[in-house]
Amino acid sequence: MSRLTHIGPQGEAHMVDVSEKSATRRVAIAQGAVVMAPETLRLAIAGDAKKGDVFGVARVAGIMAAKKTHELIPLCHPLALSKVGVEITPDDSLPGLRVAAEASLVGKTGVEMEALTAVAVACLTIYDMLKAADRGMRIEGVELVEKRGGKSGEWRRGKNDDG
Amino acid sequence: MSRLTHIGPQGEAHMVDVSEKSATRRVAIAQGAVVMAPETLRLAIAGDAKKGDVFGVARVAGIMAAKKTHELIPLCHPLALSKVGVEITPDDSLPGLRVAAEASLVGKTGVEMEALTAVAVACLTIYDMLKAADRGMRIEGVELVEKRGGKSGEWRRGKNDDG
Amino acid sequence: MSRLTHIGPQGEAHMVDVSEKSATRRVAIAQGAVVMAPETLRLAIAGDAKKGDVFGVARVAGIMAAKKTHELIPLCHPLALSKVGVEITPDDSLPGLRVAAEASLVGKTGVEMEALTAVAVACLTIYDMLKAADRGMRIEGVELVEKRGGKSGEWRRGKNDDG
Amino acid sequence: MSRLTHIGPQGEAHMVDVSEKSATRRVAIAQGAVVMAPETLRLAIAGDAKKGDVFGVARVAGIMAAKKTHELIPLCHPLALSKVGVEITPDDSLPGLRVAAEASLVGKTGVEMEALTAVAVACLTIYDMLKAADRGMRIEGVELVEKRGGKSGEWRRGKNDDG
Amino acid sequence: MSRLTHIGPQGEAHMVDVSEKSATRRVAIAQGAVVMAPETLRLAIAGDAKKGDVFGVARVAGIMAAKKTHELIPLCHPLALSKVGVEITPDDSLPGLRVAAEASLVGKTGVEMEALTAVAVACLTIYDMLKAADRGMRIEGVELVEKRGGKSGEWRRGKNDDG
Amino acid sequence: MSRLTHIGPQGEAHMVDVSEKSATRRVAIAQGAVVMAPETLRLAIAGDAKKGDVFGVARVAGIMAAKKTHELIPLCHPLALSKVGVEITPDDSLPGLRVAAEASLVGKTGVEMEALTAVAVACLTIYDMLKAADRGMRIEGVELVEKRGGKSGEWRRGKNDDG
Repeated sequence: MSRLTHIGPQGEAHMVDVSEKSATRRVAIAQGAVVMAPETLRLAIAGDAKKGDVFGVARVAGIMAAKKTHELIPLCHPLALSKVGVEITPDDSLPGLRVAAEASLVGKTGVEMEALTAVAVACLTIYDMLKAADRGMRIEGVELVEKRGGKSGEWRRGKNDDG
Repeated sequence: MSRLTHIGPQGEAHMVDVSEKSATRRVAIAQGAVVMAPETLRLAIAGDAKKGDVFGVARVAGIMAAKKTHELIPLCHPLALSKVGVEITPDDSLPGLRVAAEASLVGKTGVEMEALTAVAVACLTIYDMLKAADRGMRIEGVELVEKRGGKSGEWRRGKNDDG
Repeated sequence: MSRLTHIGPQGEAHMVDVSEKSATRRVAIAQGAVVMAPETLRLAIAGDAKKGDVFGVARVAGIMAAKKTHELIPLCHPLALSKVGVEITPDDSLPGLRVAAEASLVGKTGVEMEALTAVAVACLTIYDMLKAADRGMRIEGVELVEKRGGKSGEWRRGKNDDG
Repeated sequence: MSRLTHIGPQGEAHMVDVSEKSATRRVAIAQGAVVMAPETLRLAIAGDAKKGDVFGVARVAGIMAAKKTHELIPLCHPLALSKVGVEITPDDSLPGLRVAAEASLVGKTGVEMEALTAVAVACLTIYDMLKAADRGMRIEGVELVEKRGGKSGEWRRGKNDDG
Repeated sequence: MSRLTHIGPQGEAHMVDVSEKSATRRVAIAQGAVVMAPETLRLAIAGDAKKGDVFGVARVAGIMAAKKTHELIPLCHPLALSKVGVEITPDDSLPGLRVAAEASLVGKTGVEMEALTAVAVACLTIYDMLKAADRGMRIEGVELVEKRGGKSGEWRRGKNDDG
Repeated sequence: MSRLTHIGPQGEAHMVDVSEKSATRRVAIAQGAVVMAPETLRLAIAGDAKKGDVFGVARVAGIMAAKKTHELIPLCHPLALSKVGVEITPDDSLPGLRVAAEASLVGKTGVEMEALTAVAVACLTIYDMLKAADRGMRIEGVELVEKRGGKSGEWRRGKNDDG
């Protein structure tokens, strides 16, 4: 018996049937980071100090991408997201920018992919806006931090429950 | 004078004007990885041996996402991509799956974002297809490997040219 | 305390969390107009008399755009619209074409933006189909006429309730 | 002979064939405004002073919408835009926010619809972000200011050339 | 009284209002086929034997297209699909490939168009992947096989009930 | 050596590299039909006589779908289409509606898929608009009629050249 719920009996891909699942409140939080040269980080922060655009554009891009998750990830269900938020924080210890996203809805499927997609696209947008200064930036550690709701209940990174 | 070509004179975001740039052949190669538990990797490979779906679906998702780059990244130009390819390779040393993507076109702007977007979305798709088994997976090292063409010429990771 | 519900505590943009709102029937009606030269209006009406295309194409464009509202307006929620209708009426007193749209759903958020987007895109389509004859046309008075449903209840233009 | 180039011989709608047109540099500038209560304008400006989000989000929305013009306006050609810029300026005399957009490319068709779509969607986004405070706002005067390039050459509002 | 529910009182197109309909479980199954030369079918099957790509890519394309139905068919409602599956089977008697799709949701509208769109786009994708070998292929017999749920209840091809 | 140009050396799917191809004028014509009960056809024609909507909406849907071909068909290149036209003709001998589409561009790849996609989506739209009266309709004979341009030159149905 396969544990891969997206794979059918003969191995072919399909969208999992969620019509019998109950609609509960579900939340997912994901994070990631763009690691860059120290002077690129200074540039991003200075740009932000002036007009906030690197941070602001990446935040909007992440939110809009969460709404496109089902268009990007072939077997994701279309969802009526009730909230998406994206936070971007400079971190000298990387050096770089940390990105966190939270998605939630009342529905039949989890929103992990929506939170992860928001993080990934916010990171790609940061790369795009700073790449003229630094093509060597890397996107690192895009991962789920926490999920709540649904049959599998709560999952938190570090507790390693596969809920 | 700002080095951030997406930021206008007062700091506001805009699409860079490329109408005076010449149309040359441009290529970009990007890479990344999904790090997972050893048994998740075995599951992915076994699924692939049967029908190839984790690998196949993620490859298609990456290719289709490259064509959506300008819809996802706010200040990217719409491009007439002439090629996108995505490769996914298991790597026991991670353990996990390595993803590489190549994009090319004859045009006025580079295709770095298209290659990076293909990698990021293929990684997200791998996560989606395996997450029932392992929510702790991480997307790591999404980065540009090489670019060719355009005024700035060739850039390769390790040579640190900011072309 | 901010009255701008799309702005977070530090001023950053986010989608408002609507998961605790109740799902009620919501309706919004919006209107607008394309003002044009008298002969352009005659041309539009004559074209309509023959095959109805200026009117028909703009109506379809408005309906389809309402379904894309959450892709266009960064902080709008994706909605399961239950109805969209668009009406286009010639008005010699402008002279030009008046556009009205009604959107409704049973859901947690209002549909003002969907009705307004339908009107705006129907107006843009009218401009597009007639611009070979008249580049000087103007889109005027795109506004909400009425909304019903939700916690804030009914709002009607002229009563100036900010519901 | 019809002057409506989008209407075929029997009146049915079609995309005009532009394959024989020459690729020249084309520019279009459009404008519009959101008229609001004086206190709403103060709110928008104060929000901008803190983090720039109303202005920043609307600017990004306008730029992204310009890239979607051919998806919204049924008979518009898909275009390889080389630039889109959006400016938003408070104007106490309205009172409200003025929006201007410039689009350009080297190609076979004009970019009037792209500039107008950027303005319209930036205005809709401003409405969305401020509507909790003021549902009575109106979008006014969305119009072409200027176009350059192509067979019909230059057109400027006020000169009334229908090029 | 018109039986065409998409046509309004004066004949203009609109999305049917479904807000008063009850949300029930609805299922639709559709089918179709791509008829091709015998050697093209052998090529497709051999390609599948090696890596499964013609079959795999067409299956993914069909699933993703079902999610885009409301973007493609102007008067279709946006739906929260709970399942889409696509099956592709070689048939020497055509000769060619048979495609079947099932869509389901708990909602207010039927999912016939989603199942038919999945079939049509899977067939187009098969054509695309094999057209270098055989431009003469034909897509045949795209039709509804069965629907369940909703006020009209069950419909099955052959019973000719117009439910 | 594979004749399947979308399949790579190990069988994996990829977009064919067209960057070395020359940009020539390319045209493709495709056709298809929706077969229906005689009374459904009368209904469609009568609806058209009044306001033209079944025909008009399906025509617009076909044109807009052609522009979305590369989003629907995973390995299709994004194209700068220079023309799309869709014709719908009643045919009592089916009985039903015949659909024909022509697509053209000056570019590096053929436009067969764009013409076929326009036909398929126009047929699906006809089905959608008439399905309340007749769920038994069938889409038949979606096929390429003719292509011109490109290295393979002209292909016409009946001459069976595999260009």
